[in-house]
Amino acid sequence: MVARKGTRSPRMHPNMEHLEGRQSVLAALKARQRRFEVILVSHGAHVEKLQEVLDLAGQLGVPVRQADARELDAMAHGVTHGGILAVCSAKPRATGEQLLELVDALREPPLLLLLEGIEDARNLGFTLRSAEAMGAHAVLIKKHLWDLDSVEIARPAGGAYERLPLAQIESVEPLIQLQQRGLRLYGCIAGAKRTLYEADLKIGSILAIGGEKRGLSGAVRSICDAFLSIPTRGQGTSLSLSHAASVVMAEAMRQRWNPSV
Amino acid sequence: MVARKGTRSPRMHPNMEHLEGRQSVLAALKARQRRFEVILVSHGAHVEKLQEVLDLAGQLGVPVRQADARELDAMAHGVTHGGILAVCSAKPRATGEQLLELVDALREPPLLLLLEGIEDARNLGFTLRSAEAMGAHAVLIKKHLWDLDSVEIARPAGGAYERLPLAQIESVEPLIQLQQRGLRLYGCIAGAKRTLYEADLKIGSILAIGGEKRGLSGAVRSICDAFLSIPTRGQGTSLSLSHAASVVMAEAMRQRWNPSV
Repeated sequence: MVARKGTRSPRMHPNMEHLEGRQSVLAALKARQRRFEVILVSHGAHVEKLQEVLDLAGQLGVPVRQADARELDAMAHGVTHGGILAVCSAKPRATGEQLLELVDALREPPLLLLLEGIEDARNLGFTLRSAEAMGAHAVLIKKHLWDLDSVEIARPAGGAYERLPLAQIESVEPLIQLQQRGLRLYGCIAGAKRTLYEADLKIGSILAIGGEKRGLSGAVRSICDAFLSIPTRGQGTSLSLSHAASVVMAEAMRQRWNPSV
Repeated sequence: MVARKGTRSPRMHPNMEHLEGRQSVLAALKARQRRFEVILVSHGAHVEKLQEVLDLAGQLGVPVRQADARELDAMAHGVTHGGILAVCSAKPRATGEQLLELVDALREPPLLLLLEGIEDARNLGFTLRSAEAMGAHAVLIKKHLWDLDSVEIARPAGGAYERLPLAQIESVEPLIQLQQRGLRLYGCIAGAKRTLYEADLKIGSILAIGGEKRGLSGAVRSICDAFLSIPTRGQGTSLSLSHAASVVMAEAMRQRWNPSV
């Protein structure tokens, strides 16, 4: 396997990743889902801004080491690390079984987002951020996530990458099991007669969105309970995946939102 | 003024820009808002894929010149030009007066999007794409757009950058004139008591969204007719500007959408 800059340096344990920047590291420490090997802070970093990170690292027994700015620059994937970089285990993926347990434990109708054909780490990051904001309980991805650069996912996700349960599914079997528990699988595709706004998203729902190139796979389409379109107009080639996901999730939020609670 | 790679090469006329890739060039030719100096096609390019571009360039009398792939690579900002690059005038900005004319000529209630504090060309591109899909008639930007790389705006915009009227406003004066014509200026801000879903967006509306760092300016806030929030939940730092814009515009589309028309 080829080492990729930023995600895995040749000297790192193969299951180790980087997180770069205060916000990503802080969110990961708070979420407590990763094992931290070390946090590197550059000599020139603004320690006041990093105090919350350093305090939490201390509480959790994570070693913090001062490093040359040049060492950080060499390890970092991007230029926005702001003098802090963590070496830690990968964000754990929920298995199909864990996903069912999570759904069973919810006290409200589950809201899941299924993404297929996502090609861009940054767009996935933005999608996770929107999904969390709109109340998704988990995001399912039919994709080998190690193809995507975790630093690039984490940065636009604003912490949602750390907090949101993420399941990597290899087949439609987990979807069928979720359907057997009463969840409806809605395939969001351009041209569907029924619009998003005519569907009941207050019940347990899986909202499936495909990539811009190929859309939803035949395997997923074949088990969808219904297909929904997002009404648009103009000559545009429709919305990007992450913006379509935001609009679909926002409608679920709208239907579920209750200002009196 | 410093020449920036990709947007202006030192040899180009200062008002000339690049467009890179089949989709961006085709959309710009179709929109007929730019003056084309030349279209460069690399020797190795798939001519069949470019046929529509070449045909339209021929009709419009735009010179097409074959070039070395290396020449294109050297001129291009990105790596996704796919063997085609156009040198053309900048996308024209609508003046405040033109904006009023545009609004007066509409046969339906105007829907305008006002963006403040946009820092990222790619996010602007995605925002324009969503705005067009959701029926915006124009986008207003309180920002010197020449700070942003037009290649980076055009690529994710999927042609919307060429088609959508774009006004660059220096003060709130044009907004006040639009209000005098009956448009309501809605400031979208986190924490507003009234949600997006409680506002009437079927009437002529300007939806104002601020950047993630500073939000809407005091000048814009001081003249807003109402403030609206997007209901969200979770610990996330809310939506990104482009995703917030998509959700807000989609709600306007939902309210205005009429399947019987």
